[in-house]
Amino acid sequence: MPMSPAGCSIADTLEVIGDRWSILILRDAFRGVRRFDELQRDLGIARNVLTDRLQKLVDHRVLMRRPYQTRPTRYEYRLTPKGRDLSPALVALMRWGDTWLAGDAGPPLVLTHRECGAPLDQAFVCWSCDTTVTPTEIGSRPGPGAKGFGRANAGISA
Amino acid sequence: MPMSPAGCSIADTLEVIGDRWSILILRDAFRGVRRFDELQRDLGIARNVLTDRLQKLVDHRVLMRRPYQTRPTRYEYRLTPKGRDLSPALVALMRWGDTWLAGDAGPPLVLTHRECGAPLDQAFVCWSCDTTVTPTEIGSRPGPGAKGFGRANAGISA
Repeated sequence: MPMSPAGCSIADTLEVIGDRWSILILRDAFRGVRRFDELQRDLGIARNVLTDRLQKLVDHRVLMRRPYQTRPTRYEYRLTPKGRDLSPALVALMRWGDTWLAGDAGPPLVLTHRECGAPLDQAFVCWSCDTTVTPTEIGSRPGPGAKGFGRANAGISA
Repeated sequence: MPMSPAGCSIADTLEVIGDRWSILILRDAFRGVRRFDELQRDLGIARNVLTDRLQKLVDHRVLMRRPYQTRPTRYEYRLTPKGRDLSPALVALMRWGDTWLAGDAGPPLVLTHRECGAPLDQAFVCWSCDTTVTPTEIGSRPGPGAKGFGRANAGISA
């Protein structure tokens, strides 16, 4: 996996999942839609494009391919731990759509804390202060993998 | 803004920012890279593609265009409140890259709580239980904007 010249983890992530279809395939995987034909129907995606995207996600070890039937062998695509760890990113994209695009109808889907059923929030947390942090309170500093000293490391605070 | 047939806020969000360039332009806007020529240089993007993506982000009111110079008039592109609200999504994409792609070098950039300087976490929070929630504890239910009763509303828990 080549690093981007700027050493930016957003750019690196987008090399793996930076197209609409890949993210929608992952959304479906989280929802339990895992088989080629189901994915193809659900997404209305061309079969060759779906084949290409699935192969790419398998190559990057975001999905794994498992046989669920023999004669003929058929495969399903399951999230790896690396893939499951994309849930915060997918939830953040969903929440933005809920807030800014869903309109008067309200959110199509409400995520809940399974134990109590209350709606779930997603937040920035400072464990040192044991408090949630608003985007305007976010600072940044170069990390150990920083390259160069330009604007590329000037942060992402709002 | 047409809703997707499935009424999915992830799909809706991807209609607005679902391509690699748009997300990288937004990343740069968060970093203070706001002018056409600066963006073009920083991203190494074709000028016609940059023009197209900026116009789309302005049309969706994610960025706003403001003159910073006259004779000739030149514009910069600033995040609107709607755009700034994408910070959780960009941070989530960054954190995934930090975890899974940065390798031994470590993260290029560390986000911090500006007040205390400690590294920042991003978490799911249940305010009812006053606790953070792991992805495996996430449930879901159809929201007020739900359409249909199919798998499209079957959740996004890990």
